[in-house]
Formats: sequence, structure tokens, C-alpha cells
Amino acid sequence: MHKESSLKYILASGSPRRRELMSLIREDFTVEIPGVDESVPDNVETEDIAEYLSGIKAGAVFDGHDNEAVVVTGSDTVVIYGDRVLGKPRSRQDAYDMLKTLSGRTHEVRTGVTVIYRTESGEEGRLSFTDHAKVEFYELTDQEIEEYISTGEPLDKAGAYGIQGRGALLVRKIDGDYYSVVGFPVGRLNRELKAHGLI
Amino acid sequence: MHKESSLKYILASGSPRRRELMSLIREDFTVEIPGVDESVPDNVETEDIAEYLSGIKAGAVFDGHDNEAVVVTGSDTVVIYGDRVLGKPRSRQDAYDMLKTLSGRTHEVRTGVTVIYRTESGEEGRLSFTDHAKVEFYELTDQEIEEYISTGEPLDKAGAYGIQGRGALLVRKIDGDYYSVVGFPVGRLNRELKAHGLI
Repeated sequence: MHKESSLKYILASGSPRRRELMSLIREDFTVEIPGVDESVPDNVETEDIAEYLSGIKAGAVFDGHDNEAVVVTGSDTVVIYGDRVLGKPRSRQDAYDMLKTLSGRTHEVRTGVTVIYRTESGEEGRLSFTDHAKVEFYELTDQEIEEYISTGEPLDKAGAYGIQGRGALLVRKIDGDYYSVVGFPVGRLNRELKAHGLI
Repeated sequence: MHKESSLKYILASGSPRRRELMSLIREDFTVEIPGVDESVPDNVETEDIAEYLSGIKAGAVFDGHDNEAVVVTGSDTVVIYGDRVLGKPRSRQDAYDMLKTLSGRTHEVRTGVTVIYRTESGEEGRLSFTDHAKVEFYELTDQEIEEYISTGEPLDKAGAYGIQGRGALLVRKIDGDYYSVVGFPVGRLNRELKAHGLI
């Protein structure tokens, strides 16, 4: 289903969920985990954080491929409630606090994607975008929160939940692309890559 | 995480996707595939078809368990565009026509769930509900439709797509519970079963 290409496709992410999504677009890609500082300068607005970090990740991997024809995709997801950005919880208590905040309410998930590429003719380019989705949680009892934390699932996830795992039980509805919440908006990325002649 | 129970949990569905969802609620369930006639009487309104069929499926399995303490869950999903109900395509051409209809538009997915139970004290009961979600498709080229049909994925799915597989690439956004579109609204079913003291 893919046109032949001598471009090398690289996903700049260690997330198994993003890997699975990328395989829907192409099977011939490799994974490189960018070793980057994920701190965000003060002048980056909350709504731009995900796209900023996706650029940092894609850039770090792209910089390791001088003169090669590559298409590097980076992605980052942040969970926002009000003016608070909920990252990965640092502890069980932190996870509890986040889930308590999200309980019975609607929050926003912003996923930034950056693609940096160099074609076979040496042309370089970059495209990036942010996709957002709204996620409404059921009202959670303390027992439900504690049970969910006990599964271990929240601890490596922004906002302390994974919608594709047992976190499915917490979510009443979403408004947006489910796959943005899981990892990145795979339909949109597929279309952007096609529109730029990169797949 | 489950309270001890001598109730026997049965999922009245052969769908691997529904099986996976049910395992988020309980691990100790069995699957029985109901052999039912899925034709719908004329007096059932379009909006009630999914719930009607979920009842037929759950009922057929429940009837095979006289005097046992069982909790049988049946589920059915229909895809509706305008006043048309899109079932499983009967051919490649039928799949093409359905995907062409859904292209660039928003359709409705209605998922009906029926639970029929008999407790250890012999009390019998039934609960049922319908969950609905809106799904917006990207504008699809004929080539995209043909490629998707070639994967074989559309042929056993209502509306000729599966949102959790390669069909992910077709969907711009959803408004509702993603898991209703996949199989059934797992979060809501979990809550309904708890509210009725069945888990």
C-alpha cells in the first residue's frame, strides 16, 4: 500500500502506543528515543507546550542524521485542566491528586506533532501542528481512584491515566480524535505527510 | 479488585473487541455466541434497533441457563447515516458504497446493551440502555477507499469500518464514547453493573 521510497522514516518516541499508531501509516520505520530536556521555557504559552516539545524531540533525532534522507516525527501530549498542565505524576499521591482533579470534569488534551525531513535531493523542511480533544471523566469515588492507581497504569502517563487501558473505565466521552489522546492524531499525520509528498 | 461472587458472567458475543472490553470489567467471564436471527421487526424504530438486538442476543444465551445464577450481557452496534442503517457489507461493492456515503460526513453510531441476570436467591432482572456517538470521517479518495477495502477489515464490520484498526486513519473526530464505537460503552456498563449490585 506504500509507494517505494528511499526515505528513512524515524519515530522520535519510545512510547509503544505511538509505535503502534505509526505502524498504521507505514511499516518501514525505526524508533529513536530522543534524550532531551523536557523543561519548557517561560515564554512558551500553555497551549503551545505540546507542539514545542514535539519539535525538541524531532529536532534532537534529526540532528543525528546529517546528510541522510530522513523523515523524523516527534510528538508530545499534555493534559490541561483550567490553567494547570498535568504531566506524569511523580508519586502515588500526585496521581491521586490529578485523578481527583479530573473526576467528574472535562479536561483538554493537546497533542503536538512535528515532522522534520530531508529529501533525497537535500531539500529540508519542517511541518508541525497541534490537535486538541476534550475528555470528560465520570465522577470517581476514592476507591475507584485507589484501585486504578494500584494497577500501576497512571504512573507513566500525562494526567495520570491512559485512555486505551483500564483508564477506559474512567472516561464518559471524548470530543476530538481519540488517537490524539492515545498518542498522536494518526489520521491527520497520515494526511499531512501525504500532502507534503513525504509518503 | 473484584468482590467474590458465585455469579457466572457470560458475554453473549463472539466479537474479540467486545471480549477485550469485558475483560476490563471482570476477568472471570465466559463467552457464548448466540445463534439468533438478527432480522428486526418493522415496528422497531431505527434508533431502537441496537438495543432491541442486544436484548435478543442476551435473551438467547440467558434461556440456555435455567436456574443458574448468571449475568448475561448482550450488545449490538449499528451505524446510521440519515435514515439509513448501515449493517455489515455484503460485498466489496457494498463496502465501497458505504464508505463513499460516510466520506467527509458525520454519522451516528448507536450501541445497545442488555444485561439479563438471575441472582443466587433466584431474583431475575434485566437492564438495558443505548449509548450513541457521532463519528466524523475525513474526505476519502476512491484510492483510499479501495486500499482500505483491500485490507479486508471492512467486511465484517457495521458501516464497513473498524475504528480501532486501520479505520483509525479515516476518522477525523468522534463525539461520544470511543468504546461504544469499538464494541460497547465499557465505562457505562461497568457503572450500571455496580449500581445494580451485579459486580
